[in-house]
Amino acid sequence: MKLFRFGSPDNERPGVMLPSGASLDVTAFGHDYDETFFATNGLEKLATWLETNASSCPSVSGSVRRASCIKRPSKIVCVGLNYAKHAAETNAPVPAEPILFFKSTTALVGPDDNVMIPKASEKTDWEVELAIVIGKKATYVSKEDAFDYIAGYAVHNDYSERAFQLERGGQWVKGKSADTFAPLGPFMVTKDEVPNPNKLGLWLRVNGESLQDSNTDDMIFDVPTLVSYISQFMTLLPGDVISTGTPSGVGMGLKPQRFLKPGDVVELGIEGLGTQKQTAVAYS
Amino acid sequence: MKLFRFGSPDNERPGVMLPSGASLDVTAFGHDYDETFFATNGLEKLATWLETNASSCPSVSGSVRRASCIKRPSKIVCVGLNYAKHAAETNAPVPAEPILFFKSTTALVGPDDNVMIPKASEKTDWEVELAIVIGKKATYVSKEDAFDYIAGYAVHNDYSERAFQLERGGQWVKGKSADTFAPLGPFMVTKDEVPNPNKLGLWLRVNGESLQDSNTDDMIFDVPTLVSYISQFMTLLPGDVISTGTPSGVGMGLKPQRFLKPGDVVELGIEGLGTQKQTAVAYS
Repeated sequence: MKLFRFGSPDNERPGVMLPSGASLDVTAFGHDYDETFFATNGLEKLATWLETNASSCPSVSGSVRRASCIKRPSKIVCVGLNYAKHAAETNAPVPAEPILFFKSTTALVGPDDNVMIPKASEKTDWEVELAIVIGKKATYVSKEDAFDYIAGYAVHNDYSERAFQLERGGQWVKGKSADTFAPLGPFMVTKDEVPNPNKLGLWLRVNGESLQDSNTDDMIFDVPTLVSYISQFMTLLPGDVISTGTPSGVGMGLKPQRFLKPGDVVELGIEGLGTQKQTAVAYS
Repeated sequence: MKLFRFGSPDNERPGVMLPSGASLDVTAFGHDYDETFFATNGLEKLATWLETNASSCPSVSGSVRRASCIKRPSKIVCVGLNYAKHAAETNAPVPAEPILFFKSTTALVGPDDNVMIPKASEKTDWEVELAIVIGKKATYVSKEDAFDYIAGYAVHNDYSERAFQLERGGQWVKGKSADTFAPLGPFMVTKDEVPNPNKLGLWLRVNGESLQDSNTDDMIFDVPTLVSYISQFMTLLPGDVISTGTPSGVGMGLKPQRFLKPGDVVELGIEGLGTQKQTAVAYS
């Protein structure tokens, strides 16, 4: 199943894309894709509901704005430097254990919304990442059981202001949390449709030029390792998002370095999880 | 006005402490203290509602469990090393601008709940802090306007696992986010009752021994500076919590260092904002 959300920012509603490619408005199901949805077995209930109701659901045009594919979660946990080549390009050592940081959930936007370059920003950068959506409350989960706690996967662009992140007094969250810095979607693909999240091509282009092109099999710490690891330090709630790190090819790793300016177009995607396209604009 | 919340963890409800010291159950008002409450002028509406309804509100006994004084916010933003002596005791330089990190909102508990020492923890430490509760959405707020965006203040114990925070591969969030690591309360005091948040005594004792004893006038970056500063990097939502840093006297700064073990009792308080008391227990 592919879950998406759509509509204007003040009126976002849930939708489902069928295997046929048809997109349905499932507002009538009565639950948006939030913590309660995942916590109360919403995925299974929605699948059952669709068996008898799909034919009466309105269709959603491809031209309608897509929103973040899940409603604001309790947190977005990000993993840093999880691809060896990316660590190298940022002049950081390969980490001995996962580096974790948070991103403000106010950064969430739709997959094709504009990315706003923050005021006073000179180093707004891109990061295509595989995002994991948590399906049930996870505390001290073993690596072996980790997949039981996953609902699905989505594309995430972990936008990063490098000066804010690295030159403004420590702790990366400062450069990760601006409005529009977390496009998520176009849909969350349930885990049954992603047989191996640790073997997915992922790519990113700026103004048509290929800059990131890798595979999740290059991750240092794989999907079950990350879920288990994070759950040793905090409780993950249903609907929480884990963003698993980016491969090489970010702007700060280029020679010369390159950052976004208004008008730049960023396109990205992950095998089987869809694509995103953002245009950079000045903050307004 | 002093807002508190009470009841068992699965059934927490809103209360108000009157100037007389009487504690009222205001469930009948119909709104818990969450983002929507603050965003929809809840403080003013509640005050008006109390004028005609206070006499019919049930009272809440002092023996009933107090919960976190506000309902789970979108985020807890913490400030690191904001007292010069504390920076010195952790062997860190005095920061040139505020250091920010997040704490998982799943860490929130009531002011007198047990603090659970995480599995594999050897360095669970305390940090009495003044918490700011945001009253309305704040993006790029000036220092001059910052107080307009504040709803009130509360006591926060920013529990920290120092090995997780500092010895496990960077980014402090890893040591700040365990369950029960954020006791908040006993109440949120509205800002009209706190004429100067930058001049409040704050203290902490472990097993009766005074270990932190300072004043918020020792902060490097004061309350309006912090609200303004953080809002340059992310949007603060109504109900969000900013924890403003801890003074010297944490366990890692003692010689020899000292950390919590089961049975230890931590008491703390801030002038005019009430007191907390936690007993350390092994994770269960």
